[in-house]
Amino acid sequence: MTTHPQSHQKWFVGVDVGGTKISTILVDNDFKEHGQLTVTTDLANPDYTLTSIISAIEKTLARAGVHRDEVVAIGLGVPGQVDAQSGTVTLAANLNWYDFPAGELLSGALGVPCFLENDVRVAALEIYRHVSHEGIESLAYVNIGTGVAAGLILEGRLYRGAHGMAGEIGHIVIEPDGLTCKCGARGCLETIAAGPAIARAGQEAALQQTDSLLAGHTPVSTQYVYEAAQAGDRTALELTRRVGQTMGRALQALVMSYDVERIILGGGVTRAGDTFLQPILETWTNLRHGSPLAESLLQTNMIHLSNPNQNMGAWGAATLANHHMRHL
Amino acid sequence: MTTHPQSHQKWFVGVDVGGTKISTILVDNDFKEHGQLTVTTDLANPDYTLTSIISAIEKTLARAGVHRDEVVAIGLGVPGQVDAQSGTVTLAANLNWYDFPAGELLSGALGVPCFLENDVRVAALEIYRHVSHEGIESLAYVNIGTGVAAGLILEGRLYRGAHGMAGEIGHIVIEPDGLTCKCGARGCLETIAAGPAIARAGQEAALQQTDSLLAGHTPVSTQYVYEAAQAGDRTALELTRRVGQTMGRALQALVMSYDVERIILGGGVTRAGDTFLQPILETWTNLRHGSPLAESLLQTNMIHLSNPNQNMGAWGAATLANHHMRHL
Repeated sequence: MTTHPQSHQKWFVGVDVGGTKISTILVDNDFKEHGQLTVTTDLANPDYTLTSIISAIEKTLARAGVHRDEVVAIGLGVPGQVDAQSGTVTLAANLNWYDFPAGELLSGALGVPCFLENDVRVAALEIYRHVSHEGIESLAYVNIGTGVAAGLILEGRLYRGAHGMAGEIGHIVIEPDGLTCKCGARGCLETIAAGPAIARAGQEAALQQTDSLLAGHTPVSTQYVYEAAQAGDRTALELTRRVGQTMGRALQALVMSYDVERIILGGGVTRAGDTFLQPILETWTNLRHGSPLAESLLQTNMIHLSNPNQNMGAWGAATLANHHMRHL
Repeated sequence: MTTHPQSHQKWFVGVDVGGTKISTILVDNDFKEHGQLTVTTDLANPDYTLTSIISAIEKTLARAGVHRDEVVAIGLGVPGQVDAQSGTVTLAANLNWYDFPAGELLSGALGVPCFLENDVRVAALEIYRHVSHEGIESLAYVNIGTGVAAGLILEGRLYRGAHGMAGEIGHIVIEPDGLTCKCGARGCLETIAAGPAIARAGQEAALQQTDSLLAGHTPVSTQYVYEAAQAGDRTALELTRRVGQTMGRALQALVMSYDVERIILGGGVTRAGDTFLQPILETWTNLRHGSPLAESLLQTNMIHLSNPNQNMGAWGAATLANHHMRHL
């Protein structure tokens, strides 16, 4: 969407940097969209990755006829650990960025203030922008994709924790004798409920249950596990029920820990929609049974799925940029 | 300790209201103690309970020769749910207070601003006062007594949650098919690690393991389970190890959720000291093994026991009063 911006407008760019693609969005001060772009991430080396980000931002501006001098701030959501204050990416394995001063380099190259944040936190900020008018001040955005992590807004503030590691709920140990996680520990939430774990469990089930729909679709993907479950396949339903029970319990722990008012689930695995959500809600209904405390705190209508068609990452990054400039 | 206060001094009173006793403390603006008192809680009815609090405060002041006009503020730590803003105790089962406007009633009776807060949060505030000079901004005080709950300081602020229920980690479901908790749910952390659960498990073991020290001390108390463990009793050691493993995992989840820098354990069960602490630290050492993430986040020296001789409740309540006045 290209428009003819007016010169007195304040512009913000949001960038979602992923391991496969970079998405940008150009918004005005009222969060009206004036352009977007998606390009492939250049992973040849860390500097090339940065160059592909700069190029994507420049193209986005050029297409909308906006000069960089007119851009107030740029926000970036990055899949990894970010020192938001210095703009350094401490660890982003998918981008091969380790202690990489991306914020400083980008600000220098573009002459515009650049703010970085972990991509899950950026999504939480975006959701908060949409729900704060409902009076909601505490919420969790839980991303369930190749990993599981929560972005937290607590009493109206983005909460990062002492080392920027708050919300690493994917590494809460659920089964002490369970499978080994990529973090090295055993039985983390991710070994049961993240995408790769669901696909692996589906693959194992396919080899054992030859009458299951899964057996005809090896290697089994997470998406197919949910498709088979939706088609009523018993083996797939058992798997998705186990994921739902585990996620349901993890979300119960999250509510008991943070006392948030809203939980939004997003990320690749949640694209299965209701087939993904229902077993979680059933688990909550069971937990509520007979416990006044659970009845008052675990309201099933607290849990929402994020809109899979909305580019939460890029929008959230634009919100981050706007947020920073308002608080400076 | 009675002193001769100077007239320009600013006074604060802290009150710890428990189900059996009320403790007060009188401090000056520099947190120097000028008096304390412990009396029995009158539980005849909610108003009598309030009267016994008022009387304890008045006696504390009279003994120190301080007039109520010289008191800047009074803080109260209450064992239950408190609406800190209105000063109403929503639910304190041990005091038989339900939607009881204790803050307003006390302020009215004494002519001094009174601030109320949950007792575990009050203790967290007190610990923060002591450790903030170390640069610590995020911590959890975990109380393990008849229940298990955490008071949280996150980025230098007392965190209550949307409904004042943040830190209710005692009701995180650990064993979905476990024992029924007093909250009505099954397998809550409290059904394994709270005092009554440890005593119950000790009692059951005593009936089965007739060669255990526990068999000679029925009914078995929590304290005796730890004494027997310290004496090397195998049955008691098995029990305390199980409690330690469960608490160790719960504290791992707490770190992964909040990314706090310090955890302080207090409450009746922790009076067992090292016999209580060691199995928790061993669990953390095992969790760290092979996981760089756990190695970096789970530092065993993060976990401290609170000083059992310090009246955290009353001191914390005085800190609460001081805190409020500084922020008004």
